[in-house]
Amino acid sequence: VNVNDLKGQTVAFCASGGLDSCTITHWLSNRGVNVITFTADLGQPDEVDVDSIATRMRACGATDALVVPLRDQLADLGIEAIHAQARYEGPYWNVCSLGRHVTVKGILREATGREFTALSHGATGRGNDQVRFQIITNLLRPDLGVYAPWRDPEFLTTFGGREQMIEYCVSHGLPLKDPKRAKYSTDANLLGLTHEAGELESLSTPAHFVEPQMGVRPIAGQAFPERVTVRFVEGWPVELNGVALASRTSLFEQLNCIAGRHGVGINIHMVENRFVGVKSRGVYETPGMELLGHAYGLLLQVVLDRRARDVFEFCSNFLGRQLYEGFWYSLGAQAAREAIARTAQLATGTVTVELYRGNVSFIEVVDAPHSLYVEEYSSMEAGGGFNHADSEGFTRVVGLGARVAATRGHIRA
Amino acid sequence: VNVNDLKGQTVAFCASGGLDSCTITHWLSNRGVNVITFTADLGQPDEVDVDSIATRMRACGATDALVVPLRDQLADLGIEAIHAQARYEGPYWNVCSLGRHVTVKGILREATGREFTALSHGATGRGNDQVRFQIITNLLRPDLGVYAPWRDPEFLTTFGGREQMIEYCVSHGLPLKDPKRAKYSTDANLLGLTHEAGELESLSTPAHFVEPQMGVRPIAGQAFPERVTVRFVEGWPVELNGVALASRTSLFEQLNCIAGRHGVGINIHMVENRFVGVKSRGVYETPGMELLGHAYGLLLQVVLDRRARDVFEFCSNFLGRQLYEGFWYSLGAQAAREAIARTAQLATGTVTVELYRGNVSFIEVVDAPHSLYVEEYSSMEAGGGFNHADSEGFTRVVGLGARVAATRGHIRA
Amino acid sequence: VNVNDLKGQTVAFCASGGLDSCTITHWLSNRGVNVITFTADLGQPDEVDVDSIATRMRACGATDALVVPLRDQLADLGIEAIHAQARYEGPYWNVCSLGRHVTVKGILREATGREFTALSHGATGRGNDQVRFQIITNLLRPDLGVYAPWRDPEFLTTFGGREQMIEYCVSHGLPLKDPKRAKYSTDANLLGLTHEAGELESLSTPAHFVEPQMGVRPIAGQAFPERVTVRFVEGWPVELNGVALASRTSLFEQLNCIAGRHGVGINIHMVENRFVGVKSRGVYETPGMELLGHAYGLLLQVVLDRRARDVFEFCSNFLGRQLYEGFWYSLGAQAAREAIARTAQLATGTVTVELYRGNVSFIEVVDAPHSLYVEEYSSMEAGGGFNHADSEGFTRVVGLGARVAATRGHIRA
Amino acid sequence: VNVNDLKGQTVAFCASGGLDSCTITHWLSNRGVNVITFTADLGQPDEVDVDSIATRMRACGATDALVVPLRDQLADLGIEAIHAQARYEGPYWNVCSLGRHVTVKGILREATGREFTALSHGATGRGNDQVRFQIITNLLRPDLGVYAPWRDPEFLTTFGGREQMIEYCVSHGLPLKDPKRAKYSTDANLLGLTHEAGELESLSTPAHFVEPQMGVRPIAGQAFPERVTVRFVEGWPVELNGVALASRTSLFEQLNCIAGRHGVGINIHMVENRFVGVKSRGVYETPGMELLGHAYGLLLQVVLDRRARDVFEFCSNFLGRQLYEGFWYSLGAQAAREAIARTAQLATGTVTVELYRGNVSFIEVVDAPHSLYVEEYSSMEAGGGFNHADSEGFTRVVGLGARVAATRGHIRA
Repeated sequence: VNVNDLKGQTVAFCASGGLDSCTITHWLSNRGVNVITFTADLGQPDEVDVDSIATRMRACGATDALVVPLRDQLADLGIEAIHAQARYEGPYWNVCSLGRHVTVKGILREATGREFTALSHGATGRGNDQVRFQIITNLLRPDLGVYAPWRDPEFLTTFGGREQMIEYCVSHGLPLKDPKRAKYSTDANLLGLTHEAGELESLSTPAHFVEPQMGVRPIAGQAFPERVTVRFVEGWPVELNGVALASRTSLFEQLNCIAGRHGVGINIHMVENRFVGVKSRGVYETPGMELLGHAYGLLLQVVLDRRARDVFEFCSNFLGRQLYEGFWYSLGAQAAREAIARTAQLATGTVTVELYRGNVSFIEVVDAPHSLYVEEYSSMEAGGGFNHADSEGFTRVVGLGARVAATRGHIRA
Repeated sequence: VNVNDLKGQTVAFCASGGLDSCTITHWLSNRGVNVITFTADLGQPDEVDVDSIATRMRACGATDALVVPLRDQLADLGIEAIHAQARYEGPYWNVCSLGRHVTVKGILREATGREFTALSHGATGRGNDQVRFQIITNLLRPDLGVYAPWRDPEFLTTFGGREQMIEYCVSHGLPLKDPKRAKYSTDANLLGLTHEAGELESLSTPAHFVEPQMGVRPIAGQAFPERVTVRFVEGWPVELNGVALASRTSLFEQLNCIAGRHGVGINIHMVENRFVGVKSRGVYETPGMELLGHAYGLLLQVVLDRRARDVFEFCSNFLGRQLYEGFWYSLGAQAAREAIARTAQLATGTVTVELYRGNVSFIEVVDAPHSLYVEEYSSMEAGGGFNHADSEGFTRVVGLGARVAATRGHIRA
Repeated sequence: VNVNDLKGQTVAFCASGGLDSCTITHWLSNRGVNVITFTADLGQPDEVDVDSIATRMRACGATDALVVPLRDQLADLGIEAIHAQARYEGPYWNVCSLGRHVTVKGILREATGREFTALSHGATGRGNDQVRFQIITNLLRPDLGVYAPWRDPEFLTTFGGREQMIEYCVSHGLPLKDPKRAKYSTDANLLGLTHEAGELESLSTPAHFVEPQMGVRPIAGQAFPERVTVRFVEGWPVELNGVALASRTSLFEQLNCIAGRHGVGINIHMVENRFVGVKSRGVYETPGMELLGHAYGLLLQVVLDRRARDVFEFCSNFLGRQLYEGFWYSLGAQAAREAIARTAQLATGTVTVELYRGNVSFIEVVDAPHSLYVEEYSSMEAGGGFNHADSEGFTRVVGLGARVAATRGHIRA
Repeated sequence: VNVNDLKGQTVAFCASGGLDSCTITHWLSNRGVNVITFTADLGQPDEVDVDSIATRMRACGATDALVVPLRDQLADLGIEAIHAQARYEGPYWNVCSLGRHVTVKGILREATGREFTALSHGATGRGNDQVRFQIITNLLRPDLGVYAPWRDPEFLTTFGGREQMIEYCVSHGLPLKDPKRAKYSTDANLLGLTHEAGELESLSTPAHFVEPQMGVRPIAGQAFPERVTVRFVEGWPVELNGVALASRTSLFEQLNCIAGRHGVGINIHMVENRFVGVKSRGVYETPGMELLGHAYGLLLQVVLDRRARDVFEFCSNFLGRQLYEGFWYSLGAQAAREAIARTAQLATGTVTVELYRGNVSFIEVVDAPHSLYVEEYSSMEAGGGFNHADSEGFTRVVGLGARVAATRGHIRA
């Protein structure tokens, strides 16, 4: 899709309200494209006033500008991600992509009934976000085009980078919010912050270069440990420290606050494989997800037997990747989510952990009716439900195949 | 195998030197079994004088008692485990099982040339260790029997538990080292400590109930962060803080000391699925493994592309389980280790991390010739080796299948 | 569990009606155990009159003897297995284990309300069936014991093998049906036959040593090909050759007949890994399962994209093993079945295949609304929905990571 | 890359000698590009005289034209694929992609020392082959460009399809070999034929629409079965029917002939997921691969225990996809191949199968020193190496976890 193909047509532009949003909205409007902007309210911790974005977008030429309230949807998807422990390549909680899924789905729903040709976004032509906007839109509205100015040679010729955009905005008197150059760029929502690019591109820049916005670094954490208790019923958190939850959004707000002040989930460094096949470096702040995910993991530890764990681990890894790549709504992800949902039904219990300067440590898991941990069977003491002499037969049978393999020349040590 | 089958024969008994060792050695000798004890020197941090164990075992009736020096072998296997990131069910570094593999292999080698009918050990009939002793012996010496008194109904009738053993030892004047009842039992070697049983069997006992022996709890860690630099060449650590390593054993001794004083890898709680199919609870101290494993993981992050990562992850999980279950020398594990070895060949680089109260954080990875992280390609800026306009074709092709799926009714959101 | 523990108590014995059933029922009754026999009617093709088994069991001492009609349940489970393509180690359709699951579940339901201490069965102490009886009972009725005479030393001492049992039955005048020695043993139900043991234990006995009972060998198949059309709706077969199905049981009866006369699914040889860890050899007849499974597979080919296929393949392999090992009702299998069920919902379409002397070949798949095969996109011709020039960007982006890997010394060729 | 970028430069063009080769060679030369053609001799069964291609390419304007002998390399890679059973999505033996890997590697080696800017090929912009040419070149020679006329808008404008190319060739007097329109297109080499496109694009065209070139359809197979014996030593076939093999190339020639006359591996239908994410339909002839692969699979059946099978299966699936996608030389594939190589070392034995009208059936596996099939252990009879009473302990221990799960509400049936 090229800007000339869009002349006289309407595009739905996903506007975060930053420099790109101003530039693109104005540039497209100037080229004869009718631009309606949609701004997702995802509880961005770095954004005081989402509503003002709409005003500014109209000033940049948007014929209409909407704010779409999506905090609850994001909180719900965050919990689904926790059910699957759907991280990417280890520690990353996929918070940026969770936001993209909720944003595209929410905007497309909000835009229902309006006529438009394409969804448009300001993601660059190198990153994951452009792929996510594309795939999620393709999956949800295959009839729509996706227009990415940063992949349009005409736009690229005009705007080599930030400097030209700032100049453009200034010369056109556009209401930029904060035109000063950041040391890195940040994607923000209720579930966390994703910092990348700029000075973070050098692997000689340590993770603590980032000034945390959702808490403090471990070294600046509270001087004393703090205990947190979460009660889950069939996988869903229902109480925090014994108090019933008003909403899942408020749960994450509280967890971000608690975990953040102990440096939990703050400034997580990663070098990751982007969808496009190159490595990139990110620094993440996801205090609430980290805390809740850890607590849920402790519940899974007592609930999943080895076989169930095999299925869970597969689906967890699979979903972590689908989420990262924008395929959460695809058939494969649906199937894996069905499997995960079955395991979540058994995740009832009350988990207490202790936070201290970046550490989350186990205190107890109680009231978990589906827990497989049975002290009597676990015990090394004789008696109880376990007949030690049975183990003689067990180990002999288990060892038989090993002995056959050995006599047949299979073993190297 | 039953004690009566062994009358007049020789068994090689794996003696740790504790209460079980004294009791079993004496009891077997008394029943007419010729007992030779073998004690592995695995650099147990809780054992000052391994050699004295042999003296005590002779006093308990052993016809011969040997100490087998196995520290270097354990250190080497520990590094192989790190190459595979071969943890079990998440955080556990398999240090107990690493010790069992080295012990059984080392003892069988040491015993070469001696005539004996069975390997014997003091592991109970409920745990993993009995399975490991059995399987490793079956794999390495399928002609040998394995005799486990704790699965022999005759032994079980005599000795219900600790009390009867202590009584037995006292009444026979056996040289017990430390007969007082511990609050939990500990398996120790150079790579770490495994605490379980006793009061730890209650999930209401928090992890910090354990008094650490290899360091301090995070809260008691040093007041200031400390940086550690490890240089790896083809997967093998060759320098620590710029100093060439004297030996791998000394590497772990130093790493245990450094990480331990910062509370890294100390008192790791787990509820895990035992081989026999029930859950058990352990608390682990593995400071050196945790630190080295984390550092190596940072190197893998820059070296493994997504496809290689798929193979690596599979083999890592697989090997973590094989190690846990005593199948490290089996054909499947050999095959997976070959795959891991190929990835290790690319793991050259110098990794610096910072330790602070339980946290290990990234400082830098340098001098890594096989790193796939290329700032130029990673950069979000236009220019460089990446043509942004190419991404238009890329995302359109990638999205085509998504659009087909959507039009064919595959999508749920 | 030992026979003496059962004196004066009641056991529910799973009676197939053969030599073992007669012997065990009588022997247990004689030892003071109250035996109620349950015989599953699974549509065994080798069993003309299941009801007569009850009469004979009473004559052997059973205080009550019931026939449990389970054909429909078996047919349903068979189709669930086809949804998952839940074979074991390649070609085996798990028909014996499907029968065991249905049998144990059906008998336990039938026995509801009766008081009994243990489920008992005549499976030997070496095979898979003993494990399946044990596990399925443990999962469905953890309060019940499982009594296996072939693992009871007292029974084993009395009955070394077939000869002693025949002698025992003859001397006690028990109504044996067919006491002559078979060349191999056969487990039979509507879904297929499992032949093993006896002369089949030699790997020098070719698969065609087995005289097929559900059809003919390929070489004796019909002289002309025959087309078969199955219509599936959301995974469930609803029409055969254009005729609506009366029942799933009758579907399998018809498919067995059609496929059997073309030698499809007849005398399938396998050397497989038994649960107990040793290899065994089986020869299988599963004509209907093979035909239906193949047809369903052709539908999956057009419905599953690569991502969905990854999930499907994992769950398929996992469920094949769970089924084989008796864990179909376990949590892990439930989760995997949920994933499979999602894929089955898209499996609507009409599949036509041609049968000829052991071959099943593709004729067409039509009326499949969720098929991803779109001639327009598949076409190599220019035009249509696919812009060839887009591929330039696509391949350049895809190849970028490859080029980086190459320049960083990753490649060996 | 665009044709104008190449003016005055040299490209290495992979020429099969068909319509595309003639057209592209001439068109590029006419545009001022210096074209050297390389034609791989892969033992194409449909190509009598590979050398004449070079002559024709020169007549089309090539400044030089070489034939690269690659039959042995292809045969070797074919056997490596068999070691891994590296099929794609079930039945497809990846023969086309095996050829592409050998071709690109062989041509790049042959071209060493010559100066050229890009590798060029005639694959279309929709299929897999364009991706394979790109990736394999990127992996082996990251400094080279890859030029695909079918993705160059300038070429696409001139040549909409076959008709324009034929017209172009005729009007320029180019030596076309066989300009008549085929009903489908065929890629051919020693290991097999890949038919697709044209009339095969309709799923209403049955597989037997293809007229086989490497044998006959099952129905036209020989009237009597034929036995074939292959001796493998450490995975490598060394004897066929008791005769030592002259070369691996001749092995495939013989196997193609034998299997082909029995309709084995002929006209295999598939709907597969292309790399670019859409489904396509292929019909395959791979008689020798199918026969050899089946025989090797029978050897694996007796050699791989369950654990080794898990690793094998993973690597097999992984490598099947890497091969299909052009990533055989990548790091991930190298690692997986190391694992497979370990299993191949145990694959020594003599396998006899019987061929009859599309069927390959087991006759025997002998002289396999690493076989785990031990009649004595497999036997259901009492005695031998297996103590039936041990199974009581075994099943009780195995069942313990099942009982715990059941009492904790995990089970659904």
